[in-house]
Amino acid sequence: MSAITPTEKPTVGIEEAMQEPVPETAKKLVIFAWSGELDKIWPTLILATTSAAMGQDTTIFFTFWGLFPLVKNEKRVTGKNWMQKMLSLMNRGGIDHLKLSKMNFLGAGPAMMHSLAKSHKVASPAELLAMAKEMGVKLVPCQMTMEMMGLKREDLIDGLEEPAGATTALLDAQGAATLFI
Amino acid sequence: MSAITPTEKPTVGIEEAMQEPVPETAKKLVIFAWSGELDKIWPTLILATTSAAMGQDTTIFFTFWGLFPLVKNEKRVTGKNWMQKMLSLMNRGGIDHLKLSKMNFLGAGPAMMHSLAKSHKVASPAELLAMAKEMGVKLVPCQMTMEMMGLKREDLIDGLEEPAGATTALLDAQGAATLFI
Amino acid sequence: MSAITPTEKPTVGIEEAMQEPVPETAKKLVIFAWSGELDKIWPTLILATTSAAMGQDTTIFFTFWGLFPLVKNEKRVTGKNWMQKMLSLMNRGGIDHLKLSKMNFLGAGPAMMHSLAKSHKVASPAELLAMAKEMGVKLVPCQMTMEMMGLKREDLIDGLEEPAGATTALLDAQGAATLFI
Repeated sequence: MSAITPTEKPTVGIEEAMQEPVPETAKKLVIFAWSGELDKIWPTLILATTSAAMGQDTTIFFTFWGLFPLVKNEKRVTGKNWMQKMLSLMNRGGIDHLKLSKMNFLGAGPAMMHSLAKSHKVASPAELLAMAKEMGVKLVPCQMTMEMMGLKREDLIDGLEEPAGATTALLDAQGAATLFI
Repeated sequence: MSAITPTEKPTVGIEEAMQEPVPETAKKLVIFAWSGELDKIWPTLILATTSAAMGQDTTIFFTFWGLFPLVKNEKRVTGKNWMQKMLSLMNRGGIDHLKLSKMNFLGAGPAMMHSLAKSHKVASPAELLAMAKEMGVKLVPCQMTMEMMGLKREDLIDGLEEPAGATTALLDAQGAATLFI
Repeated sequence: MSAITPTEKPTVGIEEAMQEPVPETAKKLVIFAWSGELDKIWPTLILATTSAAMGQDTTIFFTFWGLFPLVKNEKRVTGKNWMQKMLSLMNRGGIDHLKLSKMNFLGAGPAMMHSLAKSHKVASPAELLAMAKEMGVKLVPCQMTMEMMGLKREDLIDGLEEPAGATTALLDAQGAATLFI
Protein backbone atom coordinates (compact mmCIF):
# COMPACT_ATOMS: atom_id res chain seq x y z
CA MET A 1 0.00 0.00 0.00
CA SER A 2 3.01 2.25 -0.39
CA ALA A 3 1.25 4.44 -2.94
CA ILE A 4 -1.44 5.41 -0.49
CA THR A 5 0.14 5.32 2.94
CA PRO A 6 3.88 5.48 2.46
CA THR A 7 4.55 5.66 6.19
CA GLU A 8 2.53 2.61 7.18
CA LYS A 9 4.53 0.23 9.35
CA PRO A 10 2.51 -2.96 9.90
CA THR A 11 4.07 -3.75 13.25
CA VAL A 12 1.01 -5.26 14.92
CA GLY A 13 -0.79 -8.47 14.28
CA ILE A 14 1.20 -9.83 11.38
CA GLU A 15 3.06 -12.41 13.44
CA GLU A 16 -0.18 -13.51 15.05
CA ALA A 17 -1.96 -13.65 11.72
CA MET A 18 0.81 -15.83 10.34
CA GLN A 19 0.93 -18.28 13.22
CA GLU A 20 -2.14 -20.24 12.16
CA PRO A 21 -2.77 -20.89 8.50
CA VAL A 22 -5.82 -18.98 7.29
CA PRO A 23 -7.82 -20.90 4.65
CA GLU A 24 -7.29 -19.53 1.12
CA THR A 25 -11.04 -18.85 0.78
CA ALA A 26 -10.76 -16.36 3.67
CA LYS A 27 -8.35 -14.10 1.77
CA LYS A 28 -11.20 -12.10 0.40
CA LEU A 29 -13.00 -8.86 1.20
CA VAL A 30 -16.60 -7.94 0.40
CA ILE A 31 -17.77 -4.45 1.32
CA PHE A 32 -21.44 -3.45 1.28
CA ALA A 33 -21.13 0.29 0.54
CA TRP A 34 -24.47 1.65 1.74
CA SER A 35 -23.45 5.20 2.63
CA GLY A 36 -22.70 7.86 0.04
CA GLU A 37 -20.81 10.18 2.33
CA LEU A 38 -17.21 11.30 1.93
CA ASP A 39 -16.06 10.00 5.30
CA LYS A 40 -17.52 6.54 4.56
CA ILE A 41 -16.46 6.27 0.90
CA TRP A 42 -12.89 7.07 1.92
CA PRO A 43 -12.38 4.05 4.22
CA THR A 44 -14.36 1.88 1.77
CA LEU A 45 -11.91 2.68 -1.04
CA ILE A 46 -8.79 2.61 1.16
CA LEU A 47 -9.71 -0.83 2.52
CA ALA A 48 -10.66 -2.13 -0.94
CA THR A 49 -7.46 -0.94 -2.65
CA THR A 50 -5.32 -2.19 0.25
CA SER A 51 -7.03 -5.56 0.05
CA ALA A 52 -6.44 -5.75 -3.71
CA ALA A 53 -2.78 -4.76 -3.19
CA MET A 54 -2.49 -7.72 -0.77
CA GLY A 55 -3.64 -9.98 -3.60
CA GLN A 56 -7.07 -10.54 -2.10
CA ASP A 57 -10.22 -11.03 -4.17
CA THR A 58 -12.11 -7.80 -3.45
CA THR A 59 -15.67 -6.68 -4.18
CA ILE A 60 -17.60 -3.53 -3.33
CA PHE A 61 -21.36 -3.88 -3.62
CA PHE A 62 -22.78 -0.35 -3.87
CA THR A 63 -26.34 -0.07 -2.56
CA PHE A 64 -28.84 2.58 -1.45
CA TRP A 65 -27.10 5.97 -0.80
CA GLY A 66 -23.83 4.28 -1.72
CA LEU A 67 -24.80 4.30 -5.37
CA PHE A 68 -24.69 8.08 -5.72
CA PRO A 69 -20.87 8.40 -5.60
CA LEU A 70 -20.84 6.25 -8.77
CA VAL A 71 -22.96 8.78 -10.68
CA LYS A 72 -20.92 10.69 -13.27
CA ASN A 73 -19.67 14.00 -11.85
CA GLU A 74 -21.27 16.02 -14.63
CA LYS A 75 -24.75 14.47 -14.20
CA ARG A 76 -26.94 16.90 -12.32
CA VAL A 77 -30.40 15.32 -12.48
CA THR A 78 -31.17 11.61 -12.71
CA GLY A 79 -34.44 9.67 -12.59
CA LYS A 80 -37.62 9.34 -14.58
CA ASN A 81 -40.36 10.63 -12.27
CA TRP A 82 -40.42 13.76 -10.08
CA MET A 83 -39.60 11.82 -6.90
CA GLN A 84 -36.44 10.31 -8.37
CA LYS A 85 -35.46 13.68 -9.86
CA MET A 86 -35.96 15.45 -6.53
CA LEU A 87 -33.89 12.75 -4.82
CA SER A 88 -30.98 13.33 -7.20
CA LEU A 89 -31.23 17.11 -6.71
CA MET A 90 -31.27 16.87 -2.91
CA ASN A 91 -28.54 14.24 -2.82
CA ARG A 92 -26.10 15.19 -5.56
CA GLY A 93 -24.12 12.30 -6.98
CA GLY A 94 -20.53 12.10 -8.21
CA ILE A 95 -17.31 11.17 -6.45
CA ASP A 96 -16.21 14.85 -6.48
CA HIS A 97 -19.36 16.12 -4.72
CA LEU A 98 -19.53 14.12 -1.52
CA LYS A 99 -20.49 15.51 1.87
CA LEU A 100 -19.27 14.60 5.34
CA SER A 101 -21.69 12.69 7.59
CA LYS A 102 -21.01 15.29 10.27
CA MET A 103 -19.37 18.73 10.44
CA ASN A 104 -20.14 19.30 6.76
CA PHE A 105 -20.56 23.09 7.27
CA LEU A 106 -21.94 23.71 3.76
CA GLY A 107 -18.84 22.17 2.21
CA ALA A 108 -16.13 23.66 4.44
CA GLY A 109 -15.71 20.32 6.23
CA PRO A 110 -15.10 18.29 3.05
CA ALA A 111 -12.75 21.01 1.70
CA MET A 112 -10.76 20.80 4.93
CA MET A 113 -10.61 17.01 4.79
CA HIS A 114 -9.42 17.10 1.17
CA SER A 115 -6.77 19.62 2.16
CA LEU A 116 -5.59 17.57 5.15
CA ALA A 117 -5.52 14.42 3.00
CA LYS A 118 -3.52 16.12 0.26
CA SER A 119 -0.90 17.48 2.65
CA HIS A 120 -0.47 14.00 4.15
CA LYS A 121 -0.32 12.28 0.75
CA VAL A 122 -3.57 10.39 1.23
CA ALA A 123 -5.19 9.77 -2.16
CA SER A 124 -8.57 11.42 -2.83
CA PRO A 125 -11.71 9.31 -3.30
CA ALA A 126 -11.61 10.05 -7.05
CA GLU A 127 -7.99 8.81 -7.24
CA LEU A 128 -8.77 5.77 -5.08
CA LEU A 129 -11.76 4.90 -7.27
CA ALA A 130 -9.54 4.97 -10.36
CA MET A 131 -6.91 2.86 -8.54
CA ALA A 132 -9.57 0.38 -7.43
CA LYS A 133 -10.65 -0.16 -11.04
CA GLU A 134 -7.05 -0.61 -12.22
CA MET A 135 -6.30 -3.06 -9.42
CA GLY A 136 -9.25 -5.25 -10.32
CA VAL A 137 -11.56 -4.45 -7.41
CA LYS A 138 -15.02 -5.54 -8.57
CA LEU A 139 -17.37 -2.53 -8.31
CA VAL A 140 -20.94 -3.88 -8.40
CA PRO A 141 -23.95 -1.52 -8.44
CA CYS A 142 -27.10 -2.83 -6.75
CA GLN A 143 -29.71 -3.39 -9.42
CA MET A 144 -32.71 -2.96 -7.12
CA THR A 145 -31.48 0.41 -5.85
CA MET A 146 -30.82 1.57 -9.41
CA GLU A 147 -34.42 0.79 -10.33
CA MET A 148 -35.91 2.36 -7.19
CA MET A 149 -33.78 5.50 -7.46
CA GLY A 150 -34.21 5.72 -11.23
CA LEU A 151 -30.48 5.46 -11.98
CA LYS A 152 -29.72 4.23 -15.48
CA ARG A 153 -26.52 2.43 -16.43
CA GLU A 154 -25.41 5.45 -18.49
CA ASP A 155 -25.82 7.72 -15.41
CA LEU A 156 -23.00 5.79 -13.74
CA ILE A 157 -19.27 5.91 -14.40
CA ASP A 158 -17.53 3.41 -16.67
CA GLY A 159 -15.62 0.36 -15.49
CA LEU A 160 -18.29 -1.10 -13.23
CA GLU A 161 -19.47 -4.71 -13.19
CA GLU A 162 -22.96 -5.57 -14.41
CA PRO A 163 -25.62 -4.47 -11.90
CA ALA A 164 -26.52 -7.34 -9.58
CA GLY A 165 -28.65 -8.19 -6.58
CA ALA A 166 -28.37 -9.33 -2.99
CA THR A 167 -28.02 -13.01 -3.93
CA THR A 168 -24.85 -12.31 -5.89
CA ALA A 169 -23.43 -10.18 -3.09
CA LEU A 170 -24.16 -12.81 -0.43
CA LEU A 171 -22.65 -15.61 -2.54
CA ASP A 172 -19.53 -13.51 -2.87
CA ALA A 173 -19.56 -12.87 0.89
CA GLN A 174 -19.39 -16.55 1.84
CA GLY A 175 -16.12 -17.08 3.68
CA ALA A 176 -14.94 -13.51 3.06
CA ALA A 177 -14.27 -10.70 5.53
CA THR A 178 -17.46 -8.67 5.25
CA LEU A 179 -18.08 -5.03 6.14
CA PHE A 180 -21.24 -2.91 5.90
CA ILE A 181 -20.04 0.67 5.59
CA MET B 1 -35.42 -13.99 -4.17
CA SER B 2 -37.88 -13.74 -7.08
CA ALA B 3 -40.63 -12.48 -4.79
CA ILE B 4 -38.64 -9.42 -3.84
CA THR B 5 -36.46 -8.58 -6.80
CA PRO B 6 -38.00 -10.25 -9.82
CA THR B 7 -35.54 -8.64 -12.20
CA GLU B 8 -32.35 -9.63 -10.41
CA LYS B 9 -29.84 -11.25 -12.73
CA PRO B 10 -26.90 -12.58 -10.71
CA THR B 11 -24.40 -12.21 -13.52
CA VAL B 12 -21.37 -11.26 -11.45
CA GLY B 13 -19.35 -13.27 -9.07
CA ILE B 14 -21.19 -16.56 -9.13
CA GLU B 15 -18.61 -18.36 -11.25
CA GLU B 16 -15.82 -17.07 -9.05
CA ALA B 17 -17.69 -18.05 -5.90
CA MET B 18 -18.17 -21.55 -7.25
CA GLN B 19 -14.56 -22.11 -8.29
CA GLU B 20 -13.25 -22.76 -4.79
CA PRO B 21 -15.42 -24.74 -2.39
CA VAL B 22 -16.61 -22.59 0.48
CA PRO B 23 -16.81 -24.46 3.82
CA GLU B 24 -20.40 -25.32 4.81
CA THR B 25 -20.00 -23.39 8.08
CA ALA B 26 -19.47 -20.20 6.01
CA LYS B 27 -22.95 -20.41 4.46
CA LYS B 28 -24.38 -18.33 7.23
CA LEU B 29 -25.27 -14.71 7.84
CA VAL B 30 -25.39 -12.86 11.16
CA ILE B 31 -26.53 -9.22 11.12
CA PHE B 32 -26.12 -6.91 14.11
CA ALA B 33 -29.06 -4.53 13.56
CA TRP B 34 -28.07 -1.50 15.61
CA SER B 35 -29.91 1.22 13.70
CA GLY B 36 -33.67 1.70 13.83
CA GLU B 37 -33.96 3.78 10.71
CA LEU B 38 -35.97 2.92 7.61
CA ASP B 39 -33.02 3.07 5.23
CA LYS B 40 -31.01 0.66 7.44
CA ILE B 41 -33.82 -1.76 8.33
CA TRP B 42 -34.59 -2.16 4.64
CA PRO B 43 -31.19 -3.59 3.62
CA THR B 44 -31.09 -5.61 6.87
CA LEU B 45 -34.33 -7.38 5.98
CA ILE B 46 -33.58 -7.69 2.26
CA LEU B 47 -30.19 -9.29 2.99
CA ALA B 48 -31.66 -11.55 5.69
CA THR B 49 -34.58 -12.83 3.56
CA THR B 50 -32.29 -13.28 0.55
CA SER B 51 -29.85 -15.25 2.71
CA ALA B 52 -32.67 -17.45 4.03
CA ALA B 53 -33.95 -17.99 0.48
CA MET B 54 -30.44 -19.22 -0.43
CA GLY B 55 -30.79 -21.82 2.31
CA GLN B 56 -28.34 -20.09 4.63
CA ASP B 57 -28.67 -20.12 8.41
CA THR B 58 -29.59 -16.49 9.13
CA THR B 59 -29.79 -14.48 12.35
CA ILE B 60 -30.56 -10.84 13.05
CA PHE B 61 -29.46 -9.64 16.48
CA PHE B 62 -31.43 -6.45 17.22
CA THR B 63 -29.62 -4.10 19.58
CA PHE B 64 -29.72 -0.47 20.74
CA TRP B 65 -31.83 1.71 18.36
CA GLY B 66 -32.39 -1.42 16.27
CA LEU B 67 -34.82 -2.76 18.86
CA PHE B 68 -37.44 -0.05 18.27
CA PRO B 69 -38.65 -1.37 14.88
CA LEU B 70 -39.65 -4.55 16.76
CA VAL B 71 -42.00 -2.63 19.06
CA LYS B 72 -45.67 -3.27 18.22
CA ASN B 73 -47.03 -0.57 15.88
CA GLU B 74 -49.86 0.32 18.25
CA LYS B 75 -47.60 0.81 21.31
CA ARG B 76 -47.06 4.52 21.86
CA VAL B 77 -45.22 4.69 25.18
CA THR B 78 -42.88 2.06 26.61
CA GLY B 79 -40.65 2.03 29.67
CA LYS B 80 -41.00 2.15 33.43
CA ASN B 81 -39.34 5.43 34.43
CA TRP B 82 -39.63 8.90 32.88
CA MET B 83 -36.34 8.58 31.00
CA GLN B 84 -37.39 5.38 29.26
CA LYS B 85 -40.84 6.84 28.55
CA MET B 86 -39.35 10.00 27.05
CA LEU B 87 -37.01 7.88 24.93
CA SER B 88 -39.96 5.96 23.47
CA LEU B 89 -41.85 9.17 22.78
CA MET B 90 -38.91 10.84 21.02
CA ASN B 91 -38.01 7.69 19.10
CA ARG B 92 -41.33 6.10 18.16
CA GLY B 93 -41.13 2.34 17.67
CA GLY B 94 -42.96 0.09 15.22
CA ILE B 95 -42.01 -1.15 11.75
CA ASP B 96 -44.62 1.18 10.18
CA HIS B 97 -43.23 4.35 11.81
CA LEU B 98 -39.59 4.42 10.77
CA LYS B 99 -37.68 7.52 9.72
CA LEU B 100 -34.91 7.97 7.17
CA SER B 101 -31.41 8.61 8.50
CA LYS B 102 -31.25 11.63 6.18
CA MET B 103 -33.70 13.63 4.09
CA ASN B 104 -36.53 12.62 6.41
CA PHE B 105 -38.36 15.96 5.88
CA LEU B 106 -40.94 15.33 8.62
CA GLY B 107 -42.00 12.09 6.99
CA ALA B 108 -42.06 13.16 3.32
CA GLY B 109 -38.81 11.27 2.68
CA PRO B 110 -40.08 7.93 4.04
CA ALA B 111 -43.41 8.36 2.20
CA MET B 112 -41.49 8.91 -1.03
CA MET B 113 -39.29 5.86 -0.42
CA HIS B 114 -42.33 3.70 0.26
CA SER B 115 -43.94 4.99 -2.92
CA LEU B 116 -40.81 4.35 -5.00
CA ALA B 117 -40.46 0.87 -3.49
CA LYS B 118 -44.09 0.00 -4.20
CA SER B 119 -43.92 1.10 -7.83
CA HIS B 120 -40.80 -1.05 -8.30
CA LYS B 121 -42.28 -4.08 -6.51
CA VAL B 122 -39.82 -3.92 -3.61
CA ALA B 123 -41.48 -5.33 -0.47
CA SER B 124 -42.01 -2.94 2.46
CA PRO B 125 -40.14 -3.47 5.75
CA ALA B 126 -43.37 -4.75 7.35
CA GLU B 127 -43.79 -7.30 4.53
CA LEU B 128 -40.11 -8.27 4.69
CA LEU B 129 -40.32 -8.74 8.47
CA ALA B 130 -43.27 -11.12 8.04
CA MET B 131 -41.38 -12.96 5.28
CA ALA B 132 -38.28 -13.22 7.46
CA LYS B 133 -40.29 -14.91 10.21
CA GLU B 134 -41.91 -17.34 7.77
CA MET B 135 -38.55 -18.18 6.19
CA GLY B 136 -37.01 -19.04 9.56
CA VAL B 137 -34.71 -16.07 10.00
CA LYS B 138 -33.88 -15.97 13.70
CA LEU B 139 -34.89 -12.56 15.10
CA VAL B 140 -33.09 -12.12 18.43
CA PRO B 141 -33.72 -9.06 20.62
CA CYS B 142 -30.75 -7.91 22.74
CA GLN B 143 -31.63 -8.52 26.37
CA MET B 144 -29.36 -5.81 27.75
CA THR B 145 -30.86 -3.12 25.50
CA MET B 146 -34.38 -4.23 26.45
CA GLU B 147 -33.53 -3.75 30.12
CA MET B 148 -31.78 -0.41 29.61
CA MET B 149 -34.50 0.99 27.37
CA GLY B 150 -37.29 -0.48 29.51
CA LEU B 151 -38.74 -2.61 26.71
CA LYS B 152 -40.78 -5.56 27.97
CA ARG B 153 -41.29 -8.76 25.97
CA GLU B 154 -44.98 -7.88 25.50
CA ASP B 155 -44.00 -4.50 23.99
CA LEU B 156 -42.39 -6.36 21.08
CA ILE B 157 -44.02 -8.19 18.17
CA ASP B 158 -44.63 -11.94 18.22
CA GLY B 159 -42.44 -14.51 16.55
CA LEU B 160 -39.09 -13.43 18.01
CA GLU B 161 -36.50 -15.68 19.61
CA GLU B 162 -35.87 -15.44 23.33
CA PRO B 163 -33.96 -12.26 24.23
CA ALA B 164 -30.22 -12.97 24.39
CA GLY B 165 -26.88 -11.28 24.91
CA ALA B 166 -23.63 -10.55 23.14
CA THR B 167 -22.15 -13.99 23.92
CA THR B 168 -24.94 -15.72 22.03
CA ALA B 169 -24.61 -13.35 19.09
CA LEU B 170 -20.83 -13.78 18.89
CA LEU B 171 -21.07 -17.58 19.09
CA ASP B 172 -23.51 -17.45 16.20
CA ALA B 173 -21.14 -15.15 14.31
CA GLN B 174 -18.22 -17.59 14.35
CA GLY B 175 -17.49 -18.49 10.74
CA ALA B 176 -20.47 -16.54 9.41
CA ALA B 177 -20.61 -13.50 7.17
CA THR B 178 -21.14 -10.71 9.70
CA LEU B 179 -22.55 -7.22 9.16
CA PHE B 180 -23.13 -4.37 11.61
CA ILE B 181 -25.91 -2.27 10.12
CA MET C 1 -19.72 -11.89 30.49
CA SER C 2 -21.18 -11.98 34.00
CA ALA C 3 -19.34 -8.81 34.99
CA ILE C 4 -21.08 -6.78 32.30
CA THR C 5 -24.50 -8.31 31.83
CA PRO C 6 -25.23 -10.43 34.88
CA THR C 7 -28.72 -11.33 33.68
CA GLU C 8 -27.73 -12.59 30.26
CA LYS C 9 -29.15 -16.01 29.50
CA PRO C 10 -27.70 -17.32 26.24
CA THR C 11 -30.73 -19.44 25.38
CA VAL C 12 -30.66 -18.99 21.63
CA GLY C 13 -28.25 -20.25 19.06
CA ILE C 14 -25.75 -22.07 21.24
CA GLU C 15 -26.99 -25.54 20.32
CA GLU C 16 -26.98 -24.63 16.65
CA ALA C 17 -23.53 -23.10 16.92
CA MET C 18 -22.23 -26.26 18.56
CA GLN C 19 -23.67 -28.68 16.04
CA GLU C 20 -21.05 -28.10 13.36
CA PRO C 21 -17.45 -27.60 14.37
CA VAL C 22 -16.29 -24.05 13.65
CA PRO C 23 -12.64 -23.83 12.53
CA GLU C 24 -10.34 -22.51 15.27
CA THR C 25 -9.27 -19.62 13.02
CA ALA C 26 -12.88 -18.36 13.04
CA LYS C 27 -12.87 -17.79 16.81
CA LYS C 28 -11.73 -14.25 16.33
CA LEU C 29 -13.27 -10.80 16.19
CA VAL C 30 -11.94 -7.72 14.37
CA ILE C 31 -13.88 -4.47 14.74
CA PHE C 32 -13.22 -1.43 12.56
CA ALA C 33 -14.25 1.37 14.94
CA TRP C 34 -14.91 4.26 12.58
CA SER C 35 -17.46 6.21 14.61
CA GLY C 36 -16.59 8.24 17.68
CA GLU C 37 -20.09 8.46 19.07
CA LEU C 38 -21.24 7.14 22.44
CA ASP C 39 -23.93 4.87 21.03
CA LYS C 40 -21.40 3.26 18.66
CA ILE C 41 -18.44 3.00 21.07
CA TRP C 42 -20.67 1.24 23.58
CA PRO C 43 -21.52 -1.78 21.39
CA THR C 44 -17.93 -1.81 20.08
CA LEU C 45 -16.55 -2.22 23.60
CA ILE C 46 -19.31 -4.58 24.80
CA LEU C 47 -18.75 -6.89 21.82
CA ALA C 48 -14.95 -6.70 22.17
CA THR C 49 -14.88 -7.46 25.90
CA THR C 50 -17.47 -10.23 25.47
CA SER C 51 -15.38 -11.73 22.68
CA ALA C 52 -12.24 -11.60 24.84
CA ALA C 53 -14.15 -13.18 27.75
CA MET C 54 -15.07 -16.05 25.39
CA GLY C 55 -11.34 -16.59 24.82
CA GLN C 56 -11.41 -15.17 21.31
CA ASP C 57 -8.53 -13.24 19.77
CA THR C 58 -9.98 -9.72 19.59
CA THR C 59 -8.80 -6.54 17.85
CA ILE C 60 -10.32 -3.08 17.54
CA PHE C 61 -8.85 -0.98 14.76
CA PHE C 62 -9.71 2.65 15.53
CA THR C 63 -9.96 4.84 12.45
CA PHE C 64 -11.31 8.23 11.35
CA TRP C 65 -13.78 9.65 13.93
CA GLY C 66 -13.23 6.49 15.97
CA LEU C 67 -9.82 7.72 17.04
CA PHE C 68 -11.17 10.63 19.10
CA PRO C 69 -12.50 8.49 22.00
CA LEU C 70 -8.87 7.37 22.50
CA VAL C 71 -7.70 10.95 23.08
CA LYS C 72 -6.87 11.61 26.75
CA ASN C 73 -9.86 13.12 28.57
CA GLU C 74 -7.89 16.14 29.72
CA LYS C 75 -6.59 17.03 26.22
CA ARG C 76 -8.62 19.93 24.88
CA VAL C 77 -6.82 20.85 21.66
CA THR C 78 -4.82 18.54 19.43
CA GLY C 79 -3.18 19.06 16.04
CA LYS C 80 -0.44 21.11 14.49
CA ASN C 81 -2.18 23.40 12.00
CA TRP C 82 -5.38 25.44 12.41
CA MET C 83 -7.50 22.90 10.54
CA GLN C 84 -6.49 20.06 12.84
CA LYS C 85 -6.93 22.28 15.90
CA MET C 86 -10.41 23.36 14.79
CA LEU C 87 -11.32 19.72 14.17
CA SER C 88 -10.34 18.79 17.73
CA LEU C 89 -12.32 21.74 19.13
CA MET C 90 -15.47 20.93 17.16
CA ASN C 91 -15.19 17.22 17.85
CA ARG C 92 -13.94 16.93 21.42
CA GLY C 93 -12.04 13.74 22.15
CA GLY C 94 -11.93 11.59 25.29
CA ILE C 95 -13.97 8.57 26.34
CA ASP C 96 -15.81 10.71 28.93
CA HIS C 97 -16.97 13.34 26.40
CA LEU C 98 -18.82 11.34 23.77
CA LYS C 99 -22.05 12.42 22.11
CA LEU C 100 -24.99 10.38 20.88
CA SER C 101 -25.42 10.02 17.12
CA LYS C 102 -29.02 11.14 17.58
CA MET C 103 -31.09 12.71 20.36
CA ASN C 104 -27.97 14.26 21.83
CA PHE C 105 -29.88 17.35 23.08
CA LEU C 106 -26.74 19.28 24.10
CA GLY C 107 -25.63 16.45 26.36
CA ALA C 108 -28.96 15.54 27.99
CA GLY C 109 -29.19 12.41 25.82
CA PRO C 110 -25.77 11.03 26.83
CA ALA C 111 -26.44 11.89 30.50
CA MET C 112 -29.69 9.94 30.31
CA MET C 113 -28.00 6.97 28.64
CA HIS C 114 -25.28 6.92 31.31
CA SER C 115 -27.96 7.05 34.01
CA LEU C 116 -29.99 4.24 32.43
CA ALA C 117 -26.84 2.15 32.01
CA LYS C 118 -25.79 2.67 35.61
CA SER C 119 -29.17 1.70 37.02
CA HIS C 120 -29.08 -1.49 34.93
CA LYS C 121 -25.48 -2.34 35.86
CA VAL C 122 -24.15 -1.85 32.33
CA ALA C 123 -20.51 -0.74 32.48
CA SER C 124 -19.68 2.73 31.12
CA PRO C 125 -17.47 3.13 28.03
CA ALA C 126 -14.58 4.27 30.28
CA GLU C 127 -14.95 1.13 32.42
CA LEU C 128 -15.29 -1.09 29.35
CA LEU C 129 -12.18 0.46 27.79
CA ALA C 130 -10.18 -0.33 30.94
CA MET C 131 -11.59 -3.87 30.97
CA ALA C 132 -10.75 -4.33 27.28
CA LYS C 133 -7.11 -3.45 27.98
CA GLU C 134 -6.93 -5.82 30.97
CA MET C 135 -8.52 -8.65 28.99
CA GLY C 136 -5.97 -8.34 26.20
CA VAL C 137 -8.14 -6.81 23.51
CA LYS C 138 -5.71 -5.30 20.99
CA LEU C 139 -6.51 -1.60 20.59
CA VAL C 140 -4.85 -0.41 17.37
CA PRO C 141 -4.95 3.26 16.32
CA CYS C 142 -4.95 3.92 12.57
CA GLN C 143 -1.68 5.57 11.65
CA MET C 144 -2.99 7.35 8.57
CA THR C 145 -5.86 8.96 10.49
CA MET C 146 -3.47 10.05 13.25
CA GLU C 147 -1.33 11.83 10.67
CA MET C 148 -4.28 13.41 8.83
CA MET C 149 -5.99 14.55 12.02
CA GLY C 150 -2.71 15.62 13.64
CA LEU C 151 -3.02 13.27 16.60
CA LYS C 152 0.29 12.46 18.25
CA ARG C 153 0.95 9.25 20.21
CA GLU C 154 1.11 11.27 23.45
CA ASP C 155 -2.37 12.73 22.76
CA LEU C 156 -3.80 9.21 23.09
CA ILE C 157 -4.35 7.11 26.19
CA ASP C 158 -1.82 4.51 27.36
CA GLY C 159 -2.09 0.79 26.72
CA LEU C 160 -2.64 0.93 22.96
CA GLU C 161 -0.80 -1.12 20.35
CA GLU C 162 1.59 0.57 17.95
CA PRO C 163 -0.26 2.63 15.32
CA ALA C 164 -0.78 0.58 12.18
CA GLY C 165 -2.40 0.73 8.79
CA ALA C 166 -5.07 -0.94 6.71
CA THR C 167 -2.80 -3.83 5.65
CA THR C 168 -2.33 -4.90 9.26
CA ALA C 169 -6.04 -4.62 9.98
CA LEU C 170 -7.00 -6.65 6.90
CA LEU C 171 -4.44 -9.37 7.67
CA ASP C 172 -5.94 -9.63 11.13
CA ALA C 173 -9.42 -9.77 9.61
CA GLN C 174 -8.72 -12.86 7.50
CA GLY C 175 -11.02 -15.61 8.76
CA ALA C 176 -12.35 -13.49 11.63
CA ALA C 177 -15.83 -12.17 12.29
CA THR C 178 -15.55 -8.59 11.07
CA LEU C 179 -17.69 -5.57 11.93
CA PHE C 180 -17.49 -1.96 10.74
CA ILE C 181 -19.08 0.11 13.49
